Amino acid sequence: MPIPEALTQRLIDALGPRTVLTDPNELIVYESDGLAKYRFRPDAVVLPRSTGDVQETVRACSEHGVPVVPRGAGTGLSGGAIATEGGVMISMARMNRILEIDYENRVAVVEPGVLNLQLSNATTEQGWYYAPDPSSQAACTLGGNVAENAGGPHCLKYGVTSNHVLGVEVVMPDGELVELGGGRCDEEGYDLLGLFIGSEGTLGIATKITVRLERTPPGVRTMLVDYASVESACESVSAIIATGIIPAALELMDRRTISMVEDSVLAAGYPRDAEAVLVIELDGPVPSLDAQADRVTELCRQNGARTVRLALDDAERTKLWAGRKAAFGAVGRLAPDLFVQDAVVPRTKLAEVLAKINEICDRTGVTVSNVFHAGDGNLHPNVPFDARREEDVEKIERVMSEIMHVCMETGGTISGEHGIGIDKRSYMDLIFTPETMAAMARVRDLWNPTGLLNPGKIFPDRYARVVRRAPAAIDAPPDAAVLSGESA
Amino acid sequence: MPIPEALTQRLIDALGPRTVLTDPNELIVYESDGLAKYRFRPDAVVLPRSTGDVQETVRACSEHGVPVVPRGAGTGLSGGAIATEGGVMISMARMNRILEIDYENRVAVVEPGVLNLQLSNATTEQGWYYAPDPSSQAACTLGGNVAENAGGPHCLKYGVTSNHVLGVEVVMPDGELVELGGGRCDEEGYDLLGLFIGSEGTLGIATKITVRLERTPPGVRTMLVDYASVESACESVSAIIATGIIPAALELMDRRTISMVEDSVLAAGYPRDAEAVLVIELDGPVPSLDAQADRVTELCRQNGARTVRLALDDAERTKLWAGRKAAFGAVGRLAPDLFVQDAVVPRTKLAEVLAKINEICDRTGVTVSNVFHAGDGNLHPNVPFDARREEDVEKIERVMSEIMHVCMETGGTISGEHGIGIDKRSYMDLIFTPETMAAMARVRDLWNPTGLLNPGKIFPDRYARVVRRAPAAIDAPPDAAVLSGESA
Repeated sequence: MPIPEALTQRLIDALGPRTVLTDPNELIVYESDGLAKYRFRPDAVVLPRSTGDVQETVRACSEHGVPVVPRGAGTGLSGGAIATEGGVMISMARMNRILEIDYENRVAVVEPGVLNLQLSNATTEQGWYYAPDPSSQAACTLGGNVAENAGGPHCLKYGVTSNHVLGVEVVMPDGELVELGGGRCDEEGYDLLGLFIGSEGTLGIATKITVRLERTPPGVRTMLVDYASVESACESVSAIIATGIIPAALELMDRRTISMVEDSVLAAGYPRDAEAVLVIELDGPVPSLDAQADRVTELCRQNGARTVRLALDDAERTKLWAGRKAAFGAVGRLAPDLFVQDAVVPRTKLAEVLAKINEICDRTGVTVSNVFHAGDGNLHPNVPFDARREEDVEKIERVMSEIMHVCMETGGTISGEHGIGIDKRSYMDLIFTPETMAAMARVRDLWNPTGLLNPGKIFPDRYARVVRRAPAAIDAPPDAAVLSGESA
Repeated sequence: MPIPEALTQRLIDALGPRTVLTDPNELIVYESDGLAKYRFRPDAVVLPRSTGDVQETVRACSEHGVPVVPRGAGTGLSGGAIATEGGVMISMARMNRILEIDYENRVAVVEPGVLNLQLSNATTEQGWYYAPDPSSQAACTLGGNVAENAGGPHCLKYGVTSNHVLGVEVVMPDGELVELGGGRCDEEGYDLLGLFIGSEGTLGIATKITVRLERTPPGVRTMLVDYASVESACESVSAIIATGIIPAALELMDRRTISMVEDSVLAAGYPRDAEAVLVIELDGPVPSLDAQADRVTELCRQNGARTVRLALDDAERTKLWAGRKAAFGAVGRLAPDLFVQDAVVPRTKLAEVLAKINEICDRTGVTVSNVFHAGDGNLHPNVPFDARREEDVEKIERVMSEIMHVCMETGGTISGEHGIGIDKRSYMDLIFTPETMAAMARVRDLWNPTGLLNPGKIFPDRYARVVRRAPAAIDAPPDAAVLSGESA
């Protein structure tokens, strides 16, 4: 069901010819996001340069009854920025200006296409940075971060995106413009800003974002700790948090991840015989750091650590992090695609959950590597795969579904920072009561009454308001129809 | 317009006789909250002991079309917990049990009537506490804190209520029960928890609250710094924040506040000839504290401080805080009532705003004392008054309105932590666009479609859905009809 010619022409007239892409060859790159198993081609891609362009596009699509899917850099891992029902994709890539940096009030105002790392790079010389640091921070946009309420390793101490965004300008699904949140100060009335952040593009499109900047910490200590058992590593995590020390980051990698990293070109010198390593980073005022590092070392040893390696300079620190940062990339050697799952469990259940994941691996023969933001109890089990091999995809779906059920049974939940997108909507009924689901759906239907803004995301199928393609008409590999959990 | 006899009887049958108060003498204490200039008597007060009691009450009132006003301890300062349209007030005072404390996962589960300080007291021996600390923390309830998204002096470093609440169980306006937020873990989907916190009792009634506990800081340093000019004190505040040091608290009191404190029985030894004092508290790991205190001292001196007094033990620390904590109570010597205003300005504008407040005082002859959470740019100008003297009340209203306009003109906003209630609803149109106001009203109308839950709060009159009393029928002093701003 292609979009009307009149709509395409109207968009070209309003925004200019090279801002509207309709050539199928140009559309291929917009078929999927960071979760390659889903492929849906939009009918057109629009590249606005201004808030007015976004309003024009949304208004035109609304009048023609055509879905609109906003997209940042397309690095998301839950299938949140793909055109499941076709229609017009709005790429925010050209709205990439930093509009203002106000150090005195610690804020920056940016367009949504500004890259996460671009903002930190622009402020680093003055001694500031933007705290949330998704693994994709060199590529992902701040608009996408707002949509998914993105996290990252350093969110243990500094909090996720919603803790750092002070205000947004939003184009509503009917093209109207609203300002949510306060900019320089906190706002009163309902917290519509909080509601908007993490709403995955279903409530509106952010066209301007005001964020808080943080002072670069005066000192940093980074440590690599290795263990002969995963349990010991997990117990160390609980012991550290229980003392009240909140590390800037507290990451756990299991044996399989260590092997993959060490096999790759990015070998970080992690001990191959370890069952788990922790990367622990402390930051803050220099005088307390060494005492904290000593205390952390002591706690790790008491809980079974074999060795503790403390980075003594920036080069060494970068090397310790290189392994963690390469963890997902390293998997690329093994298969063309990677399925990175995202779940959260109470921190005290980490070891138990990991043991159960290993049981599942042994039983099914599927190899799951694990990288955790351990301090937050946030798991990223991941599996390399080939999206073209349908039977592999199905098997992995079943394994991931089992893992998700294990997490939920321990009192955990289905996503820490990647969002629900289309990938995890079938789990929503398992963690929310019908009353809470209905409350969420009512909010969506209030803000996005036609359902044309980013259809198909977050909510299970029965809440769908827009269904433009019959499954048979979907120009995607068959695996796209296999939603995780549904086959379990 | 009294409530139907059948409703009263139904409530007594369901909840028991001593849980429903209708004797006018017993209702008097429920006429007003911490802002004494408004007085509206509810028709009945219900004292539920369980979530089921609350559901019963809400359902019964809903069926009879009678307003319901939830209330914690009634310490609020914006008139948020008063029965402007009569009806049934639900006092949460008897739902005051701490249900669970789970140190391993750093959470506590409480009923809404638990006092803020009660939770910290219950956990302090184990080395934990609950961080948000409103000045009323010995009296105010956690349910009220959630409704108003309460702050406090230590929120500069630790954040406000919404940063510490992980989940709530909520009775909706139709009596339905929903769980918002995740309890142990963060939740996905829309952030309805964030939307609920700070909604001032207009979206539902919290009946169970899960909060995060914090580790008692290993060390604390408290300093009193005095200045010959307010500008110097404000410049010191900006200089400290600019270094990246975030004190646990950073409070400013002006000359008038110092005098009142020193005249009271709680004299804290503040220098009477100072134009301003700062109370600065640093907390964290001990080794870094002295270095931080040195750096702060140096910055204060560079910005014109006359003396810096560092508390060397707990007794001295308590004494330095006593003055700040007594600031509002001390005013009680001067007049029976106190109007504490609440506004926020960009931190860099503090001195400018204070100068303008002093101009207004000089011109009008109204004496305004100022206590600031200076690190947050949160002002509390306050005026002692006698609610029985109508002309005084009107004059103070005009002065406060002028002050609020000054704050808004500097890019500030109308409330930092006390909420809007009925007192500041007339300012809402000044800080929000019609589109944003409409977006908020749509959310209220979605959750609270009859408008019977806490009517008259947050929204200006034209959004009112429930008007049960004509102004002439209101059994309150005439000043209650004078809403701030409207007479300016």
